[in-house]
Amino acid sequence: MSYPTLEKRFERMYLLRDALTVLEWDASTLMPDGGAQARADQMAVLRVMRHELVTTPDLGELLAKADGESLDEWQRANLAEMRREWVRATVVPVELVEARSQAVSECEMRWRTARKENDFAGLQPSFEEVLKLTREVGEAQATALGSTPYEALLDEWEPGARTQEIDRVFGGLEAFLPELVARVLEHQAQTPMPPQPEGPFPAAKQLELGRNVMALLGFDFHHGRIDTSAHPFCAGVPEDIRITTRWDEDDFTSGLFGVIHETGHALYERGLPVRFRKQPVGQARGSSTHESQSLLWEMQAARTPELLARIAEQARIAFGGTGPAWETEAMLARMLHVERSLIRVEADEVTYPLHVILRYRLERAMIAGELAVKDLPGAFADGMERLVGVRPANVGEGCLQDIHWPAGLWGYFPTYTLGALTAAQFFAAAIEAVPTIPASLARGETAPLLGWLVTHVHSQGARSTASEIIENATGKKLDPEIFRRHLERRYLG
Amino acid sequence: MSYPTLEKRFERMYLLRDALTVLEWDASTLMPDGGAQARADQMAVLRVMRHELVTTPDLGELLAKADGESLDEWQRANLAEMRREWVRATVVPVELVEARSQAVSECEMRWRTARKENDFAGLQPSFEEVLKLTREVGEAQATALGSTPYEALLDEWEPGARTQEIDRVFGGLEAFLPELVARVLEHQAQTPMPPQPEGPFPAAKQLELGRNVMALLGFDFHHGRIDTSAHPFCAGVPEDIRITTRWDEDDFTSGLFGVIHETGHALYERGLPVRFRKQPVGQARGSSTHESQSLLWEMQAARTPELLARIAEQARIAFGGTGPAWETEAMLARMLHVERSLIRVEADEVTYPLHVILRYRLERAMIAGELAVKDLPGAFADGMERLVGVRPANVGEGCLQDIHWPAGLWGYFPTYTLGALTAAQFFAAAIEAVPTIPASLARGETAPLLGWLVTHVHSQGARSTASEIIENATGKKLDPEIFRRHLERRYLG
Repeated sequence: MSYPTLEKRFERMYLLRDALTVLEWDASTLMPDGGAQARADQMAVLRVMRHELVTTPDLGELLAKADGESLDEWQRANLAEMRREWVRATVVPVELVEARSQAVSECEMRWRTARKENDFAGLQPSFEEVLKLTREVGEAQATALGSTPYEALLDEWEPGARTQEIDRVFGGLEAFLPELVARVLEHQAQTPMPPQPEGPFPAAKQLELGRNVMALLGFDFHHGRIDTSAHPFCAGVPEDIRITTRWDEDDFTSGLFGVIHETGHALYERGLPVRFRKQPVGQARGSSTHESQSLLWEMQAARTPELLARIAEQARIAFGGTGPAWETEAMLARMLHVERSLIRVEADEVTYPLHVILRYRLERAMIAGELAVKDLPGAFADGMERLVGVRPANVGEGCLQDIHWPAGLWGYFPTYTLGALTAAQFFAAAIEAVPTIPASLARGETAPLLGWLVTHVHSQGARSTASEIIENATGKKLDPEIFRRHLERRYLG
Repeated sequence: MSYPTLEKRFERMYLLRDALTVLEWDASTLMPDGGAQARADQMAVLRVMRHELVTTPDLGELLAKADGESLDEWQRANLAEMRREWVRATVVPVELVEARSQAVSECEMRWRTARKENDFAGLQPSFEEVLKLTREVGEAQATALGSTPYEALLDEWEPGARTQEIDRVFGGLEAFLPELVARVLEHQAQTPMPPQPEGPFPAAKQLELGRNVMALLGFDFHHGRIDTSAHPFCAGVPEDIRITTRWDEDDFTSGLFGVIHETGHALYERGLPVRFRKQPVGQARGSSTHESQSLLWEMQAARTPELLARIAEQARIAFGGTGPAWETEAMLARMLHVERSLIRVEADEVTYPLHVILRYRLERAMIAGELAVKDLPGAFADGMERLVGVRPANVGEGCLQDIHWPAGLWGYFPTYTLGALTAAQFFAAAIEAVPTIPASLARGETAPLLGWLVTHVHSQGARSTASEIIENATGKKLDPEIFRRHLERRYLG
């Protein structure tokens, strides 16, 4: 039997990955600055050793042999995921991987200055180099995956994703969203914004509030922590999940909803199938599924009047808040404020998909060679004006606002919006299946909702594609109409 | 050239070691309990991969080839250290390593109960198994190292150590120490103990004080941290040193001098030769040298009236302390209190070596088969009575007080006292070489002392044995007479 040998090999690879995630977490939270180079060296050697394991010469043969062995359904899915990792690791020449890695490091560094100084011309050669090498990587992978080069890039984040499917979903969105934004803004203008609680809100109190809300959502502190970092993230392993956030002492909601977002990621990791804990099939499915779990709590559940009432209650206790600004309704109105804005990461859930659709179209065109880098700033500004209704005055608030392209994260953007739609669809399906969920949330009981997610999403690991998980869990394909109904009910109801 | 290949191999091994030390630190400070098994799995795989690197079949051949190559003095010393690691890793059969590792795990677990319940008989079979397998390990290594089995065990902590040399030093100590203890106690009885500052001393304030004193000693927070753990330790890498301690809210001096002790370890690591940072020769020499560096600060420098004045000043600032209990003289008298006591870790520097001499003789006799495990409690009690002058009433305060033997740490005890003597000898030599050191310490300037240590100890790495480092730095072999003079001046002066 080759399959057990393969499981042993992959177990070691995943243990190396697990060790790496701890080192990464430490580097982003506690590590003194002077330790950066030493840490980079440690992580590089673990990555190299992990790469060596997945490119061991006999691995292809073992995979081929295991194909003819008697395996159960999970093992077969695991074997497919093993093959996927092996193909992705071996199909791109090492020299190309290294050249791209260096180009990305340089471009990312230059981007920090270029964004600040609105200097697109200064970044352009470095950006072009990243695009060229990224395209080559996509081309090398495309043959092996039977996909287009852009799809091969997508596949890193969203295994099995196809542009035809994304076009269907994004096309559906674009058909109603710009018009819906206009209606929501009109509707919103009829009610004045409620006042905001006055700070300062000390970081220590915010941390305490964050912990209480995490516990409310079902986070198990016996198997995890929360800490502070420059950018919020979720790291660690299912038995020891580490989420981080940052605190704004003037507005506690930004940190708090960051905590809720990361808690959603953490609950997903915690619910992955234990039997395949250190195997490819036991991992989270991909970026859109992961994002669906963070957004399900941040954007769906925590923004229902029912659960927000419990969260607002915790906030009042934490800060001793009283008066109109502290009421659930006031907090909800502020959390649901919609605006045509320039910066993606600050966008509300109604306009956000339009930011993403633009980036998806542009990056696809660049990979296909249909859009030259020099034409990106204009195409970006035109697209923003047409889709979101505002025009960036410079590249800093335009096409250079995000790190993704300079950092080599091509094919990542679509997963944000796929995740948002998936979250809406899961939440609707969960309530349809368990109609008492809203009432439970109103009592601060999240177990019925979490239970549905564990059963239909978390425990599925990477056994099927994101599309199949959605279809199995909700009975239909990802459907922009469900997202539309969600927005209309919430913003026009 | 084989030598450069060897350096590459060992660099990878040391990077794995570096990653392991971060994972270990995290496990002892921040990790939630539920993460323990996952972390153990991660660390086990890194250890296995490290072991595989040092036992790669061609390593012996590479070492032999490199022996004939043109190398500078440091490279040659490095090659010798590489060979030492290779011999230690390959000479003991894997089955024996595993059997011993399991026996140790079980014995350590049983010891926790046996110590609490004074149940030696219950531990005895497990203790005997550890002894038997430890002896077998020593025997397997002895041939390759050209030493006795006990010396082979010693060698793990104290490379190149020989019992003849330890007997010389410990014999010298035993010749004067029991009588000196009696004189010190008599002298001490003539002065009443000064009052102790009254707590509670909040942990947060103690941490702040700890940081200030660390900075005073020369600790660089750009390259390190201090945190809280159940047992104080020093971990991490020279570029990112992590020390920990625990806080007693009734008595701030125990935590503070714990910080000073660990800072000594940290300064040593920080001063190791950068050129051989990831090579065997670039590491700390061994346990006694490491202990000499922690004790040099904790027991030598920080207990001089000069430096203690600066530390007491910091303590007064931290806690707003005033009055006689807060004076340097009062603090010094309390820090130099001597007592015949039962517990090694609580012993003062005058009686401490007697605890160690006893353990050294007993463990050597057990390894040599001259003392049966069943006779250990009686031999221990008799030895305590004869050497320290107090007799344990049970095994919990007798031969089971320390974790070392159940945990498989045989040959470790002597290094505590070798370290204490080395610290006294280094400190005396530094002052002889730079007579302004005490005056500098009185001004809170530790750079002259630290500079001497970096030059004569830290920067020497593992280029020579501990004995050679002492001889090169101080002009003579480790000399118990220097320790005697130190004690007489401090306690009878």
